[in-house]
Amino acid sequence: MEFDLIHRYFKTPFGELAQANPDSVLLGIGDDCATLRILPNHHLFTSTDTLVEGVHFFSDDPPSVIGWKALASNLSDLAASGASPLGFTLNLSLPEIDENWLAGFSAGLLDIATRFNCPLVGGDTTSAGSSPLKTLSITVFGQAPAAHGGFNRAHARIGEEIWLSGTPGLARLGLLLEYQKRGYLEQRCEGVELSQIQALLAAMTAQLQQRAVSRLRMPVPRVELGLKLRGLASACLDLSDGLSGDLAHISSASGVSAVLFQSSLESMWRNCWPEIDQHADAAQLLKTLLMQTWRGGDDFELCWTAHPKHHSAIQSLGDDLTCVGVIETGREIWVQSPSAGRTRVASLSYNHFAEVPN
Amino acid sequence: MEFDLIHRYFKTPFGELAQANPDSVLLGIGDDCATLRILPNHHLFTSTDTLVEGVHFFSDDPPSVIGWKALASNLSDLAASGASPLGFTLNLSLPEIDENWLAGFSAGLLDIATRFNCPLVGGDTTSAGSSPLKTLSITVFGQAPAAHGGFNRAHARIGEEIWLSGTPGLARLGLLLEYQKRGYLEQRCEGVELSQIQALLAAMTAQLQQRAVSRLRMPVPRVELGLKLRGLASACLDLSDGLSGDLAHISSASGVSAVLFQSSLESMWRNCWPEIDQHADAAQLLKTLLMQTWRGGDDFELCWTAHPKHHSAIQSLGDDLTCVGVIETGREIWVQSPSAGRTRVASLSYNHFAEVPN
Repeated sequence: MEFDLIHRYFKTPFGELAQANPDSVLLGIGDDCATLRILPNHHLFTSTDTLVEGVHFFSDDPPSVIGWKALASNLSDLAASGASPLGFTLNLSLPEIDENWLAGFSAGLLDIATRFNCPLVGGDTTSAGSSPLKTLSITVFGQAPAAHGGFNRAHARIGEEIWLSGTPGLARLGLLLEYQKRGYLEQRCEGVELSQIQALLAAMTAQLQQRAVSRLRMPVPRVELGLKLRGLASACLDLSDGLSGDLAHISSASGVSAVLFQSSLESMWRNCWPEIDQHADAAQLLKTLLMQTWRGGDDFELCWTAHPKHHSAIQSLGDDLTCVGVIETGREIWVQSPSAGRTRVASLSYNHFAEVPN
Repeated sequence: MEFDLIHRYFKTPFGELAQANPDSVLLGIGDDCATLRILPNHHLFTSTDTLVEGVHFFSDDPPSVIGWKALASNLSDLAASGASPLGFTLNLSLPEIDENWLAGFSAGLLDIATRFNCPLVGGDTTSAGSSPLKTLSITVFGQAPAAHGGFNRAHARIGEEIWLSGTPGLARLGLLLEYQKRGYLEQRCEGVELSQIQALLAAMTAQLQQRAVSRLRMPVPRVELGLKLRGLASACLDLSDGLSGDLAHISSASGVSAVLFQSSLESMWRNCWPEIDQHADAAQLLKTLLMQTWRGGDDFELCWTAHPKHHSAIQSLGDDLTCVGVIETGREIWVQSPSAGRTRVASLSYNHFAEVPN
C-alpha cells in the first residue's frame, strides 16, 4: 500500500519534472538515496522545515494550499541564500490514507515545484501512529557558485542600508482574517490590541483582504530576487518570524544595530494599500499595520543589507523593494520616527511553544 | 525558548563536529541554509527517514537510543549507495519540552554522528500541536566519486551472486523480545506462529538475546562496507523491510529472479548462534529464524549482488558476509532447499499502514 501510494501521488506525477532535469537529477525517487549532480565550482545549499497540522496550517486548509506552502517556505530559504533550486525530499506522517487529501496536496506541491523547477527526489511516508495530526517536513537542495558568499547573516556592516521586499506583515493580516472567520480572534488578541485589529480588518478593502489571505496561503518565495541580489546584498534572510525577531538574528550575528525609519515602513504599507489615507484614523491603522510587520508571520519576503553604493541597482530590481533603515553600531533594533525620535523595539517574534493556534 | 533549546541541545554540542569538518561544512546551523562543499567530480547522495513515536520506537525507549537509531537508518542508506557521510539535518516535532528527553536524544545522536563523522548542519524544531507523539525526520547527505555508479537497484544481472552482511532478522528477534517484555507478543503473533516464536525466544542464549535487542536499538550502519563494495557490487540496498520485500525491489527494478539457498541462510544463522544445534528442535528453530529474515525489521544490514569473479575479494572484506543465492531470469524470489527443491516466496515485508505496534 505504501509503495502504491508513493507511486500514485508522488513518483508518477513528479516523474516528468525529474526527467526534465537529467543534468542534475541522476537518480530520483525509489532507491536508497537520490543522486544529484552539483555544477563544478558550486556549493550545496540546504534547508528544512516542518509543518504540523493545527500549528502551521489549519486542519480545513485546502490540501493543495498546504502542499504549496510547505515547499514555498523551503524555497524561501534558498532565496535568502541566493541559491538556485536543485530538488527536495518530503517526509509525510499521516493518521490515515485520505486519497482526496493526498491528491490535493500532491497537486499543490507539483504546482510550485514546477514553477520553480525543483523536482521531488525522495522521501518517506509513514503512519502517524495514534496521532490525529498530519506532520510534514521538506528538505530542499540548491546550489550557488563557490564565489558567492551565500548572504551569511553575520555579514551586515555599519553604514549599510536595510531593505525589504514586498510588504512583510501582510501574511499576518491574512492569518488574523482566518482567525476572525473561525471565531477565535478574541482568543488570539486581547484588550486594546483586539479593538485595533478589529478596526484594521474592518477598514481593509476586499481586494486587500484577498491579497492578505493569498499571501498567507500561497506565498511566492523570492527565489529570482535572491539570485539577482548576488553581488549586491551582504546579509540576507527570509522573514518568517516577524521583522523584529528576524532583524535580531542579523543584529546578533553581525554585532550591529538596525535602525528602521517609521516613515519608510509607512510608505511601504501605503504602497500596498493606497486607499488607507481616506480613513480618518489612518495614523492608528498604520501603527497597527507596523505592529503586524514586527510580529510577522509567514510572508517569506526577504530582508537584506547592502552598501549604499548599490542603492539604485537594487531599486531597479523591482517595484516592491523598499529601503527601510540603516545598520549602525550597537546590538539593538530601533525605530526612528520624525516626531518621537528613536524607540527600541523588543523582539516580538513567533515562538512555537508559546503560541499554538489550536 | 526555541532558540535556547536549539543552542543547548544541538548547536553547542554538535558545534565541535561541524568545526572539525571545515572543508565540507562551510556554514552550519543557524542561517537560512547550511552550505556544504562537495568534492570536485563527486555527486551528492541524499536520503531521508521519519520516525514516529509508537510506530518506529517505543515511548519508553531510552532517548539516546532513539537519537542513535534515527541517524543510523539514514547512514544505512548512504552505506547502501556506497557514499561517504557529509552531514545531516533534523526535524523534531515535540508535544512538550522535556529537557531530560532532549538531553538523552541529543547525546545518542551526537554519539553516532561523531562515530561516522557526520555533522548536524541544520534543522527545524516545532511544537507537535495537540499530538501527544514525538515525530522526527532526518535527511542525510553524502558524496561519492562521479565514476561510482551508486549501486542502483536496477543493476542486478543474471548470474550474479547475492550477498548479505550480518544476520538480517536479528533485529526482529530483538523486537519480538521487546513485545514479550511488554506483554503484547500474543497480540502480534497468533496460533502456530506464536508457539514457534515463544519456543525460539526461550531457546535463545542470554547473550544472543542481548545482541538481538542491541541490534534493534543501536544498529551499526555498514558505511565502511558500502565504501569497500565500490567497484565490486552491482545492485545494493539496506535491509529495512525484510529480505523478501527488499529483494523484491531488486527483482522488480532489474527484471530478474533471486534464488536463495536455504542451506546458506541456515549457515548464516548458525554462524550467529553456534549453540543452536544443541537443541533437539534445531530444524524447527532454524525454520522460524528464516521466517524472521523474510519478515525483517530494522537490521540495516546490506544486501547486494556481485559478479562471481568478485567472490573472494568480497569474502575477504569481513567475517560476517555470506553469499546466499544467485540472480536468474524471471521476476520472482525463490528459496532452494536440498530436500524440498524450489519454493516461491511471497513478499512478507513490513507495511506501515497495516501493522502499527500501538
